[in-house]
Amino acid sequence: MSSTRTLIRGGLVITASDEIHADVLIEDGRIAALAAQGSAVSEPWTADRIIDATNKYVIPGGVDAHTHMELPFGGTFASDTFETGTRAAAWGGTTTIVDFAVQSVGRPLREGLDAWYAKADGNCAVDYGFHMILSDVNESSLKEMDRLVEEGVTSFKLFMAYPGVFYSDDGQILRAMQRSATNGGLIMMHAENGIAIDVLVEQALAEGRTDPRYHGEVRRVLLEAEATHRAIQLARVAGAPLYVVHVSAEEALAELAAARDMGLPFFGETCPQYLFLSTDNLAEPDFGGAKYVCSTPLRPKEHQAALWRGLRTNDLQVVSTDHCPFCFVGQKDLGRGDFSKIPNGLPGVENRMDLLHQAVVDGHITRRRWIEIACATPARMFGMYPKKGTIAPGADADVVVYDPHTEQTLSVETHHMNVDYSAYEGKRVTGQVETVLSRGEVVIDQRKFTGRAGHGQYTPRGTCQYLG
Amino acid sequence: MSSTRTLIRGGLVITASDEIHADVLIEDGRIAALAAQGSAVSEPWTADRIIDATNKYVIPGGVDAHTHMELPFGGTFASDTFETGTRAAAWGGTTTIVDFAVQSVGRPLREGLDAWYAKADGNCAVDYGFHMILSDVNESSLKEMDRLVEEGVTSFKLFMAYPGVFYSDDGQILRAMQRSATNGGLIMMHAENGIAIDVLVEQALAEGRTDPRYHGEVRRVLLEAEATHRAIQLARVAGAPLYVVHVSAEEALAELAAARDMGLPFFGETCPQYLFLSTDNLAEPDFGGAKYVCSTPLRPKEHQAALWRGLRTNDLQVVSTDHCPFCFVGQKDLGRGDFSKIPNGLPGVENRMDLLHQAVVDGHITRRRWIEIACATPARMFGMYPKKGTIAPGADADVVVYDPHTEQTLSVETHHMNVDYSAYEGKRVTGQVETVLSRGEVVIDQRKFTGRAGHGQYTPRGTCQYLG
Amino acid sequence: MSSTRTLIRGGLVITASDEIHADVLIEDGRIAALAAQGSAVSEPWTADRIIDATNKYVIPGGVDAHTHMELPFGGTFASDTFETGTRAAAWGGTTTIVDFAVQSVGRPLREGLDAWYAKADGNCAVDYGFHMILSDVNESSLKEMDRLVEEGVTSFKLFMAYPGVFYSDDGQILRAMQRSATNGGLIMMHAENGIAIDVLVEQALAEGRTDPRYHGEVRRVLLEAEATHRAIQLARVAGAPLYVVHVSAEEALAELAAARDMGLPFFGETCPQYLFLSTDNLAEPDFGGAKYVCSTPLRPKEHQAALWRGLRTNDLQVVSTDHCPFCFVGQKDLGRGDFSKIPNGLPGVENRMDLLHQAVVDGHITRRRWIEIACATPARMFGMYPKKGTIAPGADADVVVYDPHTEQTLSVETHHMNVDYSAYEGKRVTGQVETVLSRGEVVIDQRKFTGRAGHGQYTPRGTCQYLG
Amino acid sequence: MSSTRTLIRGGLVITASDEIHADVLIEDGRIAALAAQGSAVSEPWTADRIIDATNKYVIPGGVDAHTHMELPFGGTFASDTFETGTRAAAWGGTTTIVDFAVQSVGRPLREGLDAWYAKADGNCAVDYGFHMILSDVNESSLKEMDRLVEEGVTSFKLFMAYPGVFYSDDGQILRAMQRSATNGGLIMMHAENGIAIDVLVEQALAEGRTDPRYHGEVRRVLLEAEATHRAIQLARVAGAPLYVVHVSAEEALAELAAARDMGLPFFGETCPQYLFLSTDNLAEPDFGGAKYVCSTPLRPKEHQAALWRGLRTNDLQVVSTDHCPFCFVGQKDLGRGDFSKIPNGLPGVENRMDLLHQAVVDGHITRRRWIEIACATPARMFGMYPKKGTIAPGADADVVVYDPHTEQTLSVETHHMNVDYSAYEGKRVTGQVETVLSRGEVVIDQRKFTGRAGHGQYTPRGTCQYLG
Repeated sequence: MSSTRTLIRGGLVITASDEIHADVLIEDGRIAALAAQGSAVSEPWTADRIIDATNKYVIPGGVDAHTHMELPFGGTFASDTFETGTRAAAWGGTTTIVDFAVQSVGRPLREGLDAWYAKADGNCAVDYGFHMILSDVNESSLKEMDRLVEEGVTSFKLFMAYPGVFYSDDGQILRAMQRSATNGGLIMMHAENGIAIDVLVEQALAEGRTDPRYHGEVRRVLLEAEATHRAIQLARVAGAPLYVVHVSAEEALAELAAARDMGLPFFGETCPQYLFLSTDNLAEPDFGGAKYVCSTPLRPKEHQAALWRGLRTNDLQVVSTDHCPFCFVGQKDLGRGDFSKIPNGLPGVENRMDLLHQAVVDGHITRRRWIEIACATPARMFGMYPKKGTIAPGADADVVVYDPHTEQTLSVETHHMNVDYSAYEGKRVTGQVETVLSRGEVVIDQRKFTGRAGHGQYTPRGTCQYLG
Repeated sequence: MSSTRTLIRGGLVITASDEIHADVLIEDGRIAALAAQGSAVSEPWTADRIIDATNKYVIPGGVDAHTHMELPFGGTFASDTFETGTRAAAWGGTTTIVDFAVQSVGRPLREGLDAWYAKADGNCAVDYGFHMILSDVNESSLKEMDRLVEEGVTSFKLFMAYPGVFYSDDGQILRAMQRSATNGGLIMMHAENGIAIDVLVEQALAEGRTDPRYHGEVRRVLLEAEATHRAIQLARVAGAPLYVVHVSAEEALAELAAARDMGLPFFGETCPQYLFLSTDNLAEPDFGGAKYVCSTPLRPKEHQAALWRGLRTNDLQVVSTDHCPFCFVGQKDLGRGDFSKIPNGLPGVENRMDLLHQAVVDGHITRRRWIEIACATPARMFGMYPKKGTIAPGADADVVVYDPHTEQTLSVETHHMNVDYSAYEGKRVTGQVETVLSRGEVVIDQRKFTGRAGHGQYTPRGTCQYLG
Repeated sequence: MSSTRTLIRGGLVITASDEIHADVLIEDGRIAALAAQGSAVSEPWTADRIIDATNKYVIPGGVDAHTHMELPFGGTFASDTFETGTRAAAWGGTTTIVDFAVQSVGRPLREGLDAWYAKADGNCAVDYGFHMILSDVNESSLKEMDRLVEEGVTSFKLFMAYPGVFYSDDGQILRAMQRSATNGGLIMMHAENGIAIDVLVEQALAEGRTDPRYHGEVRRVLLEAEATHRAIQLARVAGAPLYVVHVSAEEALAELAAARDMGLPFFGETCPQYLFLSTDNLAEPDFGGAKYVCSTPLRPKEHQAALWRGLRTNDLQVVSTDHCPFCFVGQKDLGRGDFSKIPNGLPGVENRMDLLHQAVVDGHITRRRWIEIACATPARMFGMYPKKGTIAPGADADVVVYDPHTEQTLSVETHHMNVDYSAYEGKRVTGQVETVLSRGEVVIDQRKFTGRAGHGQYTPRGTCQYLG
Repeated sequence: MSSTRTLIRGGLVITASDEIHADVLIEDGRIAALAAQGSAVSEPWTADRIIDATNKYVIPGGVDAHTHMELPFGGTFASDTFETGTRAAAWGGTTTIVDFAVQSVGRPLREGLDAWYAKADGNCAVDYGFHMILSDVNESSLKEMDRLVEEGVTSFKLFMAYPGVFYSDDGQILRAMQRSATNGGLIMMHAENGIAIDVLVEQALAEGRTDPRYHGEVRRVLLEAEATHRAIQLARVAGAPLYVVHVSAEEALAELAAARDMGLPFFGETCPQYLFLSTDNLAEPDFGGAKYVCSTPLRPKEHQAALWRGLRTNDLQVVSTDHCPFCFVGQKDLGRGDFSKIPNGLPGVENRMDLLHQAVVDGHITRRRWIEIACATPARMFGMYPKKGTIAPGADADVVVYDPHTEQTLSVETHHMNVDYSAYEGKRVTGQVETVLSRGEVVIDQRKFTGRAGHGQYTPRGTCQYLG
């Protein structure tokens, strides 16, 4: 923790609810005070380090609630380690990630969680927490859930997709939801009907439809909507809340919106790839579509408008990245001739804050909503507010000075993620991270990395702050 | 086939669309002509047998599209044989049943179908056809489906309930639907999420909730609605029509109604027990609720109004019985101390036409709608119209002379089903079957049984007449 | 009434519910009997006139429940008199029309009704009845409604459009609906928010948007939907049924469908022009769009699919013509330079049965549904069933022998309506009326007119047969 | 403006988005700074006045966006003047009201606005702004709207109720909405179908149903829902946003929710009386129901749950009071024997913050949502944020120290509104305003009034901050 005193002067402080011209004083790694610029109280403030934020935004560090560093998948590993991935996060203005520890089938949660603690420990540039993936719901793992909630791992991911790998059947899902209804945990759901999809995959391959574009075709919109509806009904039976990850289809969103209209505690996340990319990308020639293979898949362009609307109406509350990079050469190409063998995932942890600022520029969302969906709500949803996700006295001094005027071009040439392509190659965006503080320590200083592996701390989490 | 000429004079002929004062002339087992009463053409008509239907209704024989004679279930057999069951049907004004042949797991459809042909052959008092229950969807049984459609077995039942018995997973369901989309078959679905229900059953039993009433509680309304929605989405993916059997919950009906509003070929059936009985019956003391154990289960009374409304708005099209009787003594009591061991099913094939006439008296439906949901639509739905389900020149002379004024009391004392209780014991209804003709032959004559086992013929069916 | 005996042999008799190969025997102007072709009963039948219908359809004469012969509108009169209009109806296979008598503001209903009786009396080629247009709802006219219902004028049209002409305000509408709730009348509603539309008309004209196409633009879809919703809510308050005329917009249909899903007695009619024409026609050059000016207006093509779907799902029950022809020369051109002065209306009474048969050919509806929406349901809706709308013993012998195979081209050159253009000029359709009987008398004989002015009789009507 | 420096120490600062333990420093009538309690920066702070807020909440002053001080209505005047009403507001923790200036029919907006400026000027204890009631939409008043928006009167109320008084027809509404779409104003709508209601009123009175309870019966739920739907559709036609005042019926809320699901800029307000009172109150004996006569009327209790849900799902965004008090003696009793003559309105400006805190205690809403619906959102909605509605550096120092633990009993005995009854007489609530600052000046000091008439300033407003 920093013992220096830092003062950020002259910026426009933007939180989920306010836009104020305020100076921000940081002491001991936390926000100590905000004062009106030019007020009698702030003028005499001194500090060890004074950052001039004139004409800049001063925003909370981003909270990316969905990343997969070093994830083993399809016989390979996501190409970003906790070290490279969290460094890239810092470059992109994200100061907290929540990654997923994985239970192996037949093994205790503890074992998987400890493995992930070890992977991350001492390697991270920014703070991090863990969700737990339940691959094997049984009496023993249900009991372990309680202990994990107490320990600060308060959310549990289940899969209705990937039979034979992460898949849970409806009985397992119901049991886990019932458990979460009593222990305060939050179930995160990958909602696709994997059993039906696997039939369509097999049929596609049998008919020679092996190109990456068919990945998007077989993972039908209706099968995402179906699973979303089913997860909601099971959660209603269990009396449990629900968080649906990576919502990509308008029809799935409609299921969520209908449930929310009833006043039920159901939540939805989408990701930048669904907002900015489409099946057009999956159809890029020469196996180029493989770069965009992820699940849920990219959808036809028409779905984007629905997702933006959902973000505005608060039927979707969070934008995370589902960052899970695989190199095009050596990893994605495992699926040449069989799209079902392409490792699923895209890089993105570095691009999220910029892409969402571009959405502000484009008029899709307001500035405050940008901060809400990228910082404040993920922090609340996963029990880290107001430590994370806002700029308020007492909060961790995770602060980004953001230049809203600079233009940049997203590219593998300039990004810092450990992957050989950018999903947004060549895209021009307005706005750029300039300086980043993590608990008061400057980790990006005027676009130079000044952080270090090991600065980032494990952050045990409370339960979802939208309940009760 | 009868070679006598029969004339029914003086009645009010009611079909799905008309109410006319007409004399009905029958030749060679078929309707030869209808003529206005008192017209020059009809007055000189003569016949071997003249039935006076003055002040009576003349209606098409009932078509019960959902019966389970002699069904093996839970270690016992439904107590009506084809002989006793079809005789009771005749008593109740039903002249056609469609029963279910059962595929055994690991065995061909052919084998099951042949077994059911044999059970029925020579034993039936009225005509009959077969649906096929698919217990094991695989490459081989999918191919057999095509042959069965050609042979006149044009509908196939799948179960989302009963894991380990009849249950098909979503992949099997999707494959069967895809097949039906090409061969013209109609998938009939038992829509309950059996995987989730089994968790709740296990929990209820573990907590000592073993009374029959808990059968109704664990089979949650939301889990019927969920499965209905899922079946609809899978059918949309397959491009196939769908017929949902025994809809009992308002929420399930709402899913069907929403799909039908889109103009999609989805159909729904309910049964008299859901219209006239409720969870109050399941809560009858001294294990009495066991008499009412069936799946989908009886629901709280409030659902009845929704089902009647659905019948009026045509969101439900058919009322069948799901006749599947088990004696209270010796069969139902297999489940004392464990409701999950109670054989599922109710007797009803004899009561349907009367109960639905009572609904006319009560103002729930019109007379024409009575005939439509009980005769015409089931005949069309399962490819037997206009042979069955109407009174029109050329149709089979399956005709009921119905007395709309007589009162009767439903009771085990007077019914003809081979089961030791009535689900409607003591219920007073207005209206009674007086005389029944099956293909021109009088099988009930002024409330005496004059038919015989073996008169009833197997009726191969065409495909659903609501498609294309 | 004819005293001859007529026999129609060899055709396929199609009603709303049946398709049967039957011979039809007619005595004294009514259907005496139907017999299976080749049956012992029918073979010896003799008749004064035998019509060979081999390979033809034998269908009920059409019932067009919405025509405006000789209607005074916008300073001129609809160009078809009762004589020319009903003759054209006969040519088109329509044997019953229900026209609209008009109350003048400040005058009794009686006066208007008597005027219309006089216009029609002795002039009609086919049977006719009357609805009553209420232009001035007040204590006196409310009382008159009761008497008209008793007299056989059982339906009353109100306008939410045309302020200063036919317009009723919501209080008048509510009062009329309350009255119909007690006297059994049926309110028919022209549902457009005329007050708001007049603002948009004024603004369009002030901005020089005077072409006919702007008629379609200012009469906004949302203002039809709004008025439809409002009419439904007022009817719910009054506890009255409601029939919405000429539904043209998908959004208006959606309001109706939502109300019907609740099981409420609300009904909807559309017209061929909304099913086959669109705003593309309104945009025809050289003032050509004026031919298609009617209200509700033609809509963009996308609405057609919704209307067809509504006809299939029974959210729309009737197709009438709203036949109200004005000659292009001398009438429509009153509105050159000001679309609001174009007389509103299209010719169509002759084309309806053919256009809807074309819809059968095109796969939009089935043959039985064709007869249902064009014959049976309008007859039931307006209290004329089973006299009109079906072929059954006892019904009026209004019968059309329809050739489903002949092709024809719709054109002003060949039509018999008294108007100088066809709204469907040049359209090729398959199917044609061959012979038409009105109460047993042949009025079209193998495409020659053999009827006469004065054969058509006034038909007092009972109340709506879908209620109670 | 105060030149004193005030420090509020030790409280829990609650805003719409944050709950932080912070000290609040006030300089020159504005929030100068917030600092973490116990931080190095805050400890040395000194001030002229230090308020100890230990164990208390420190919240923004309430913003009541709907009051009617001194309103002329039904031949009398609302009994609170700007002096008594704003003093009562201060007592209740509300530091800003937005009242309604009234245009007289046939007179310019200017005249009405100036009259209201004059009524309020020099009399108010807390700050105030004005909406404008449009009683006469015409070319001239439309033009005046533009000028008023520029001057800080940015919202305009229209009535679909009260024909002959405030009522505008749909054409006038459409024109005003079109104008607001271009000048940035916000249309506020009283959504009840007054034309239809007046018919029901007349009928009720004619039948001797004159008691206050019939006020609730004739103003039907469906007629609020209808008008809400109509207002929404007209706003869609105009391309304008819309704010519906005093939503009281579940069905009206459903219309709003459906429109919001489309992502459209439609907003809804409810009032404490609809959340806490019901038709049971309207049925109080001895004309006691008159105390609760307001429009929209109180609804059956079942509607309350829907309104609370709407507040949670953000389908309702604001709770205002519609404060419009009339004394029981001398005013309400104008309507003895004729409920339609009872002046419409309830007192409430003093009770809102407490009642909504009670909703926090009861679990209907969270603390932050309390502040959002009562302070932050009304301020944003009507263009006063962040001056009003939050506690942030730069904001006006409108601050309430709220004791969440004290119990109090609402009563006419203890309230400060100038009216002879309390609508909540005898209701026990937990929580009480302790100290109130208005622009830094203490107006309530430990439950003593220390303010003065004339301290309150007129606050010109910007346009709605939820648009664009």
